[in-house]
Amino acid sequence: MQAEIITIGDEILIGQIVDTNSAWMAKELNKYGIGVSKITSISDEADDIVTTIEAAMKRAPLVLMTGGLGPTNDDITKKTLSDYFGMKLIQDDELYQKIQDRLAKYGISMNPFNQEQALIPDGARIIPNNFGSAPCMWFEKNKRVLVSMPGVPFEMKGIMQNGLISAITEHFETSEIVHKTIMTDGIGESVLAEMLSDWEENLPLNMKLAYLPSPGKVRLRLSITGESKPALEKMVDEEVEKLKKILPDNIFAYDDIAIEERIAELLLEKGKTLGTAESCTGGYIAHLITSHAGSSAYFKGSVVSYSNEIKEKVLGVNSKDLEKFGAVSQEVVEQMALGARKVLNTDYAVATSGIAGPDGGTDEKPVGTVWIALAGDFGVQSEKLELYKVRERNIKVSAFKVLNLLRKELEK
Amino acid sequence: MQAEIITIGDEILIGQIVDTNSAWMAKELNKYGIGVSKITSISDEADDIVTTIEAAMKRAPLVLMTGGLGPTNDDITKKTLSDYFGMKLIQDDELYQKIQDRLAKYGISMNPFNQEQALIPDGARIIPNNFGSAPCMWFEKNKRVLVSMPGVPFEMKGIMQNGLISAITEHFETSEIVHKTIMTDGIGESVLAEMLSDWEENLPLNMKLAYLPSPGKVRLRLSITGESKPALEKMVDEEVEKLKKILPDNIFAYDDIAIEERIAELLLEKGKTLGTAESCTGGYIAHLITSHAGSSAYFKGSVVSYSNEIKEKVLGVNSKDLEKFGAVSQEVVEQMALGARKVLNTDYAVATSGIAGPDGGTDEKPVGTVWIALAGDFGVQSEKLELYKVRERNIKVSAFKVLNLLRKELEK
Repeated sequence: MQAEIITIGDEILIGQIVDTNSAWMAKELNKYGIGVSKITSISDEADDIVTTIEAAMKRAPLVLMTGGLGPTNDDITKKTLSDYFGMKLIQDDELYQKIQDRLAKYGISMNPFNQEQALIPDGARIIPNNFGSAPCMWFEKNKRVLVSMPGVPFEMKGIMQNGLISAITEHFETSEIVHKTIMTDGIGESVLAEMLSDWEENLPLNMKLAYLPSPGKVRLRLSITGESKPALEKMVDEEVEKLKKILPDNIFAYDDIAIEERIAELLLEKGKTLGTAESCTGGYIAHLITSHAGSSAYFKGSVVSYSNEIKEKVLGVNSKDLEKFGAVSQEVVEQMALGARKVLNTDYAVATSGIAGPDGGTDEKPVGTVWIALAGDFGVQSEKLELYKVRERNIKVSAFKVLNLLRKELEK
Repeated sequence: MQAEIITIGDEILIGQIVDTNSAWMAKELNKYGIGVSKITSISDEADDIVTTIEAAMKRAPLVLMTGGLGPTNDDITKKTLSDYFGMKLIQDDELYQKIQDRLAKYGISMNPFNQEQALIPDGARIIPNNFGSAPCMWFEKNKRVLVSMPGVPFEMKGIMQNGLISAITEHFETSEIVHKTIMTDGIGESVLAEMLSDWEENLPLNMKLAYLPSPGKVRLRLSITGESKPALEKMVDEEVEKLKKILPDNIFAYDDIAIEERIAELLLEKGKTLGTAESCTGGYIAHLITSHAGSSAYFKGSVVSYSNEIKEKVLGVNSKDLEKFGAVSQEVVEQMALGARKVLNTDYAVATSGIAGPDGGTDEKPVGTVWIALAGDFGVQSEKLELYKVRERNIKVSAFKVLNLLRKELEK
């Protein structure tokens, strides 16, 4: 079964915010066998909303919308949908009470904007929103369903998980979709494509392969749709086994997980701890790791030594070496990793030092020159990277590369 | 003038990647007076591509597409467009040479996938891609323009900035769009709406106001379209002056800049330095700051003290206080800030300690309890936050709140 997603809001169309809702919703729908065939972002204009939902409901049995449900005058979605489905807006007493209670907690009394939030189209089914006052509305027309949710990501996620998904799977008969993502590193996309071309040509007819390159890695995704999930999974697993033989050294995970999640698994399995010493990555590696719940079990901390003074004082880097070789050097990055392992008292420590750009490069060490190091009970190892001119990319790739060094060590 | 954006790729529709290209492109087009009226994401299917571009070209004089131009078999956009515009694919010798040279640098020889990359539709105009081998193609039909670019963000950005924008502004006559964003904190969206309702009602007829709430803040955006940029800017500035009088204490910036950018301005202006001591934010604040080029001028580093051991050993937090009050306490967060200021030798230090969740809360200190502190030559100040159940949101709001504490201090 196919669904469409519509996101509403001028802020998306002028590029003030990135629409992250669609990707999250698509992923969630896929788990329940619902594919997304189109995502459309439109402005807060009644005409646009009507034309777009009309077209979407012709193509797809399920249309999910987010946005345009705030209390302010620029948000017109509720009124527009109510008119479109020929309904009247009436006050929902339960919702009114909920909003009033929520405001009372902050010592605020109900104002006309809040009262407006408590109106719902008569005839629409309401799915609870546990994290906000904008209601989620379910409309039906000729067995087709249109659902309107608020655009605030955590409200939308709460609605999907606490009621909407079950309402959808009760209403529709869905088939199964199986995706499998294989994470590879160290081979560029076109070389990989050549290595895999025989295998790709012999894939089962209804199985689709996609290549997704991103900084430092290529994700390979196999997708297949059918009736029986176990049968589909078996077909995919057989292909993955063949792939392993073609790429014995370059697969680092069999799920679309981030490298830091793979490292978390390995560190937990072995009961080891990690710390980081970050210069050019500026805390990004620590942030990646601590974004995941439970990271305190294996991550002890980081020294972001942006200045040389901190490299010396906190990490114990030799000041003569700093002067002689510069901060971006093998000597310094290795001492950073060793120093972090010691001061943070961890089993492993990773370190980065480089010129992220866009300025600060020299002929000898151009922007994109990065040294990475890993310290452990074996001592220390390091590697020089020659990356890009773009700061954000240099930070991301450096983080990936040094975590991948650790991943290989942990998998030994 | 209005444009539409189409992004192609199954990875978007299954939610494997978030489409960040559209927001970036929309923002860029807005600068040149081109509004975006619709963004559509579709799969790598020829039928979908043809139907969608046909509809978009009927509605808008300019359609920009990204994606589907990779060297692998799942990418079919070039072939589809070539067929749609009745053109043939022919080899571009210059592009062929460029790809060959690039591969030679890595010691790789041309394979059939790379050769395919050098084909272009005869009759399409080529805009240079300095960061990759997929060509950017410009098609014209009845004076309407469709442009196809690769989906890799830094390739697309390079193409837009190094040729495509000038090609667009030469081809079309555009009007002016002025957006102004005013960043507010400390007042919720609906209360703000009430405070501003009189002002909003008296805005010039063609001026639009939007409310954009996000963790810890509400952005207000004024937008207006017309012929003369200076006149539009003057109208907007007049409204901003009125707004300042309504909200004398809650505006922290007059551009859509992140809080760390405002802090960078202030620190540079005053010649002061900053360090961070992060527990629950886990390096996120350091990462925010170091994402911006030039941050080494005012940012010296961070101690991410995820474990109590590091709070004691590196930051000098008193072990008895840690035991008595717990890591998430006023005593500990203040000592963290003071300790960081000392060990990192900075003018200011901010610190966070909290329960980010989803687990780890108690009755006394539920998930979302966060202490933040700021140390400076005045001593130390701190604040308790009672945030949410959601880890990501707690990390972001804590970072914003503590940086905002610093912003207020710097603006004194």
